[in-house]
Amino acid sequence: MKSTSRDIRIRNCFSVLRHLIADNPTSRQLVARETDLSVATVSNLVTDLIELGVVVEVGREESGGGRPRALLAPHTSGGVLIGVDVAETYVHLEVYDLGLTVVDRVWQPLDTSENTPDEVIGHLVDGIETVSDRLGGRPILGLGVSLPGQVDVAGGVSTFAPNWNWRNVPFRALLTERLRVDVPVYLDNPLKTVTVGELWFGDGRGVDRLAVVNLGTGVGAGLAFNGDLYRGATNSAGEWGHTTIDPDGPQCRCGARGCVEAHVGAPAILRRWGELDPRAAEGSQAEALAALAAAWRAGEDSAVRTVEAVSRSLALGVANLVNIVNPDLVVLIGWVMRELGEGLLPEVERRLPEQAMEVPLKALELKVNHQTRNMVSLGAAALALEGHLNLINTVGARSRR
Amino acid sequence: MKSTSRDIRIRNCFSVLRHLIADNPTSRQLVARETDLSVATVSNLVTDLIELGVVVEVGREESGGGRPRALLAPHTSGGVLIGVDVAETYVHLEVYDLGLTVVDRVWQPLDTSENTPDEVIGHLVDGIETVSDRLGGRPILGLGVSLPGQVDVAGGVSTFAPNWNWRNVPFRALLTERLRVDVPVYLDNPLKTVTVGELWFGDGRGVDRLAVVNLGTGVGAGLAFNGDLYRGATNSAGEWGHTTIDPDGPQCRCGARGCVEAHVGAPAILRRWGELDPRAAEGSQAEALAALAAAWRAGEDSAVRTVEAVSRSLALGVANLVNIVNPDLVVLIGWVMRELGEGLLPEVERRLPEQAMEVPLKALELKVNHQTRNMVSLGAAALALEGHLNLINTVGARSRR
Repeated sequence: MKSTSRDIRIRNCFSVLRHLIADNPTSRQLVARETDLSVATVSNLVTDLIELGVVVEVGREESGGGRPRALLAPHTSGGVLIGVDVAETYVHLEVYDLGLTVVDRVWQPLDTSENTPDEVIGHLVDGIETVSDRLGGRPILGLGVSLPGQVDVAGGVSTFAPNWNWRNVPFRALLTERLRVDVPVYLDNPLKTVTVGELWFGDGRGVDRLAVVNLGTGVGAGLAFNGDLYRGATNSAGEWGHTTIDPDGPQCRCGARGCVEAHVGAPAILRRWGELDPRAAEGSQAEALAALAAAWRAGEDSAVRTVEAVSRSLALGVANLVNIVNPDLVVLIGWVMRELGEGLLPEVERRLPEQAMEVPLKALELKVNHQTRNMVSLGAAALALEGHLNLINTVGARSRR
Repeated sequence: MKSTSRDIRIRNCFSVLRHLIADNPTSRQLVARETDLSVATVSNLVTDLIELGVVVEVGREESGGGRPRALLAPHTSGGVLIGVDVAETYVHLEVYDLGLTVVDRVWQPLDTSENTPDEVIGHLVDGIETVSDRLGGRPILGLGVSLPGQVDVAGGVSTFAPNWNWRNVPFRALLTERLRVDVPVYLDNPLKTVTVGELWFGDGRGVDRLAVVNLGTGVGAGLAFNGDLYRGATNSAGEWGHTTIDPDGPQCRCGARGCVEAHVGAPAILRRWGELDPRAAEGSQAEALAALAAAWRAGEDSAVRTVEAVSRSLALGVANLVNIVNPDLVVLIGWVMRELGEGLLPEVERRLPEQAMEVPLKALELKVNHQTRNMVSLGAAALALEGHLNLINTVGARSRR
């Protein structure tokens, strides 16, 4: 409950750096205008960001008669961040410079039988060693890891990963033990990392009340208020995928009936299609969903009816989220959305007014994230960047005031 | 998105005064301990609160050898606040001192036909004139009014009150025009005021993530994060009553099907009971609900089955709220809860684990508010108090730094 001037300083620091990453090179004056902060505040923060090695001056520009203004940019040739998307079928590791541009990447498939903490950590350590060798001595400022399921962020523990049957795995401690490099490790789940990714590098930048709806095999939402990820009491906020939209609906893997996920998760979509078309069972989940999308584009009846039914459920779930949270922006994201978004979005937009209240709906912007980047690993890296930026309170003259 | 040191100052000021109201007389040192602020910060804020006339020193206490410490309390003999609960069937006006104790009260019934803005404002003006005459010259520092429906807080406009068929009524302007006294007017709806009431004077004090679930004729939830009411983009956050829990469920007065309100609002409860027992149609809504409560206590089958069905729906709705918001505390409040809480609460607690996720549920505290006070008018007065406290930025040496 306590708020301190340190919190404000960090929040303003995030805001300044987000603008510098989005739009560079730029000047202190322009950043001040964009962030609504005073030039003095921006200048103080920039001085500390430079001292921290995160920002550099890259030149000067004329300013219409006055003194030339220094141009600023993220320090992209210095330290790097690593973000890892540990999913149920792969480990996707990316290395980013401080402008959040990918500079290296390792992708490893995970066999469904390889799901002990030891095996998963093995893949992670391999990946980190591979990219470390290629870094040419650039320091790793932080490592963010996204793990499926429930995560205790402060403790660095995977409290519950249902599909792997993990309970209370001290993941951070186990990982740190096996790493040859000394690097701060930040853990969270994909819902949280993808939302942080949207705040730093997506449509969520500068949005006061943001909901990121993630559609994949699992389904969930990430919330962010005033530029900060909203975690809730136990980092479980946004378990929207397990809200009930129909008590007589299909069984969900969580044990309950009629959850959003049991209607719009990839397995649920394919089950619906499978009632009408045997192709739903062919190949992998991703292949079958791509086949559904192709059939929908070809106007095949079974696919059109499936997409309609899924849209109805998705609209119900999104309307519930809108009625409770009243966000400025809902971003739809995830591989299912990439495949089927073209079919789902117009139907969802058409149905929303039946369920969502008029006033919040009028203020709502609904967007599909069309980024081809992996927002989970990007967001994991952004979490590591946020951790690194906390050091700003230890540098600079302003921190000692 | 911009955060300023003024915001922090106001938030800390709320926190200090909330503790002073809850536990007085007390010292700067004890307030500092309770609020987790430094003694210097508390002292600065108290100096300004004294200058603003909100807090007074009421004596001294020995402090175990050191200098005697000044004892502080809210300034209960100075200015007053007025909070008004404008409901569909009554106008309930209360006058509060700065300790939020009721010092005067006027209750007027509203006939269902008296629902033009002019008629409602007439009752309000009458009430304010009645209590003004009895105030003996004490100044009114602020007037908070709770109106049903959707409210534009900044504009002071009732944007939509469905049961009165009001649209975009400039309520504050109309009211101010007819008031003989010059007083700042704050408008909001009962969901918001009741939540602010819980923050200032109820179970919500000091809770980081709070949800207040209000059960009456209408149904909704108020959310508060870090001691601040969460309004959402258009002050519509918490329209939980109009989230869908069953797409084939009963018709709701909002137009949609299967909303929470269509299952657990007073009319819905009586409709369910009415399918089993003709007494559901006898007398007013409140009388019929009291009869249901009595029948439940007597163990009558129709009442037991009704309470069970309502509990099932309420548990679904609360579970959805918990899964999305992950609050530390859910407070159940409202006249339906007062009547039926004894029957509903144990059933809801029993059913929650079927629908809510394990991790957020374990961290959740679920409480019934047993206050007999009108939390809507109290909360409306607390909103006016918050408005008055914003003046703290205009007094004192600390504000000029």
